[in-house]
Amino acid sequence: MTDVRPEIAAMRGYTPGEQPLGASKFIKLNTNENPYPCSPKVKQAIGRACQGGLERYPDPAGSAFRAIAGRMLGFEADWILCGNGSDDILTIVTRTFVSPGQRVRFPKPSYILYGTLAEIQGARSEQITFDENWDLGERFTQPADGLALAYLPNPNSPSGTVISPQRILTLAERLPCPLLVDEAYVDFADVDCLDLVRQNERIMVSRSLSKSYALAGLRFGFLVAQPQVVAELVKVKDSYNCDALSIAGAVAALDDQAWLAENRRKIIATRERMTAALAELGFLTPPSQANFVWAVHPRVAAQTLYQQLKARQILVRYMDYGPAGAGLRISVGTDEQVDVCLNELKSMV
Amino acid sequence: MTDVRPEIAAMRGYTPGEQPLGASKFIKLNTNENPYPCSPKVKQAIGRACQGGLERYPDPAGSAFRAIAGRMLGFEADWILCGNGSDDILTIVTRTFVSPGQRVRFPKPSYILYGTLAEIQGARSEQITFDENWDLGERFTQPADGLALAYLPNPNSPSGTVISPQRILTLAERLPCPLLVDEAYVDFADVDCLDLVRQNERIMVSRSLSKSYALAGLRFGFLVAQPQVVAELVKVKDSYNCDALSIAGAVAALDDQAWLAENRRKIIATRERMTAALAELGFLTPPSQANFVWAVHPRVAAQTLYQQLKARQILVRYMDYGPAGAGLRISVGTDEQVDVCLNELKSMV
Repeated sequence: MTDVRPEIAAMRGYTPGEQPLGASKFIKLNTNENPYPCSPKVKQAIGRACQGGLERYPDPAGSAFRAIAGRMLGFEADWILCGNGSDDILTIVTRTFVSPGQRVRFPKPSYILYGTLAEIQGARSEQITFDENWDLGERFTQPADGLALAYLPNPNSPSGTVISPQRILTLAERLPCPLLVDEAYVDFADVDCLDLVRQNERIMVSRSLSKSYALAGLRFGFLVAQPQVVAELVKVKDSYNCDALSIAGAVAALDDQAWLAENRRKIIATRERMTAALAELGFLTPPSQANFVWAVHPRVAAQTLYQQLKARQILVRYMDYGPAGAGLRISVGTDEQVDVCLNELKSMV
Repeated sequence: MTDVRPEIAAMRGYTPGEQPLGASKFIKLNTNENPYPCSPKVKQAIGRACQGGLERYPDPAGSAFRAIAGRMLGFEADWILCGNGSDDILTIVTRTFVSPGQRVRFPKPSYILYGTLAEIQGARSEQITFDENWDLGERFTQPADGLALAYLPNPNSPSGTVISPQRILTLAERLPCPLLVDEAYVDFADVDCLDLVRQNERIMVSRSLSKSYALAGLRFGFLVAQPQVVAELVKVKDSYNCDALSIAGAVAALDDQAWLAENRRKIIATRERMTAALAELGFLTPPSQANFVWAVHPRVAAQTLYQQLKARQILVRYMDYGPAGAGLRISVGTDEQVDVCLNELKSMV
C-alpha cells in the first residue's frame, strides 16, 4: 500500500514473545509473566466494577489509581500518569519528546521495543552496548545531534542487572535530554529511582503491573514524573486509555501489598535457586534482580537450546543481539516449572 | 518543560465530555453513552475470563474477536484490526499514514479529536464545512499538497446526519489520499460503508462497541480494511493494546445480536420522539441516524441552555464550532431521562 508513511512501510514491526492460544501444555517461561495468580481482591474489584455497569466511559484520568499510587509511593496524585500497560506509557513519552529525524538512545542489549517506538516516530536509534559489568560508560551520556530521549530499563531486560540510583542520577545529569527509567521489573529488585524524579524534572520512572502484580492480561502501567511533565504527556495519551475494569483492578492490586510481598518472596527465592543451578550447568548468568535470568552457555548455542526446549513444550525467550551476544532469557516460574526446565537443560549441555 | 516537542507544548489537548466521578445525580446526556446496560452475556464472559486468571498476556491480535467480527460482517479475520476503543484505531491510522508537516482533512462540524490527532502528529488540519444539506462538496476531494488522510464520520457527530455509501465511494475515488469512514454510530443508522472496503483499499471503516453495545467503560473498537492495510497498521499499534477482559467481553457482545437489536430499537424509537418534541419547541434538528440529536435554537443561545440544564443536573454537550455554529448535542437516554430534559427545555425557550 503506497500511502503508508515510508518509515512504517520499511519497518518489520515488533514481535512480542510467543503466546500459544487456547489450552496449552507449554511451560511458559518466555514473557516474564508471573506464575502465581493476582490477589483475589483484584478479581473481586473487577467483578464489582463489571456488575456496576460498563455503559459509561471510564474516568479519563484514572483518578482513583493516581490517588492510591501517589499515597503509596509518596507523591501527589498529579505526579502519576496511568497507562494501558507500560508499553502505552513508553509510547506516550516517545510521542511527547521525540520529533521525526531526532534520535533516541538506549542500552544494548535491552528492551527491543524502544527501537520500534523510535522507528514509528521516524526517529533514529542509538544503542550503547553495556560494558562487561553491565554498567554504561561515558558514551551513554555524550551529546549528539537531535538526541531527544534516553531509555534505561532498570532492572534491565534481558540481563536482569541493576545500575544504582546514584549512578543513574549522574548519567541523567550528564545527558542532554530527558531520561526514562523503565522500572517494569523493579518490584523484584533492591533499589528504585523514584527519589530521582523529585530531584530532576528530566527523570521519569515507568512501572508495570504485568509482572509483580500478575496482571499482564489486564494491561496497566503508570509513570511517575513531575506534574508539569505529566501535564504535557496527558495531551498525547488517548483520552480513555485505561478502561473501567483495569482501573478498578489496578487500585485493588496496589491495595493488597501483603499479596505482592508474598509473591515477590517466592519468586526471588526461586530465582536464586535457579541462578545457582544454571551456574552449575556451566551457564554464565549476570546477577538478576528481576523475575528472569539471562543465561549464556559458553559451548552450546542458545538457539539450539531454545529449539530443543520448545520441542519438549518449554518456551523460553531466545534473543540474539548480534555482536552483543545471544542467549536465553528464562522467566522465573513456579519451583516445579523451573525444575522441569533445569532437568531438560541438564540433558542438553 | 523545554524538552517537549514544540507541537505538543503549543497544544491545549483534547477535552473529553464531562464525566462526573462517583455516585452522581446527573442525568448524563453528554457523551452518547447507551442508557441501557450491556448484554448479561458480556458480564458472564468477563467474569469467566477474570476467574481464568490475568497473569498471562492477552492474545496480541485479539484473534477470537477478529474471527467473530469477520464472520458476522462477511470478511476474513485478517481484514479486522482490534483497538482499545475506536480512538485507539484513529490514533493508529493517523500514525500510519500521516507524516509531520503533511495535512489531514475532515468535515466541520465533526469529531474534534481528528484535529487533536493531527496536532500530535505534527500535521495540519483542513476542515471542510458541510453544506446546508449536511453533504460535502467538491472542496472535500480537491487535491492539496501533502494531503495524507481524510476522516469522515458517518453518521456524523454532532449532526447525526448520514451521507450515502454511493456518495462516499465517489468522494473516496476523487480523494488523492486514504479515507477513514468513522462508523462509531452506525448501528443506529440505516446504511453502512463496509462494502466499499472491498472495492477500494484506500477506504477503511472504524467501529466502536462503546455506543450501540453499551460498552464505553470497556474500551473496544475495531477497523475493517484490506489485509495489506491491516498488516501495516499492526506495526504501529501497541502489541497488547486490548486486554484479556475486553477481548472476552467484545466477543460475547457481538455474539448477542438479539440484545443489540432490542437496544437499537428502543433508542431509535426514543430518538424519533425526542426529535419531534425538540422541533415542537422550535429547535432546528437535522435528521439523526445516531444515538443523539443536534439541536440549535434560533432564539436562545446554546450555551445558556447548556448552563441552565447543568444547574438542574442535566448534562448535555455544548459545542461551539465558530462560524459553523454552536448547538447542543443531546444523547438519547431512556424515555424518562429524555422527558425530564425536554420538560426543562420547555421552560427555557
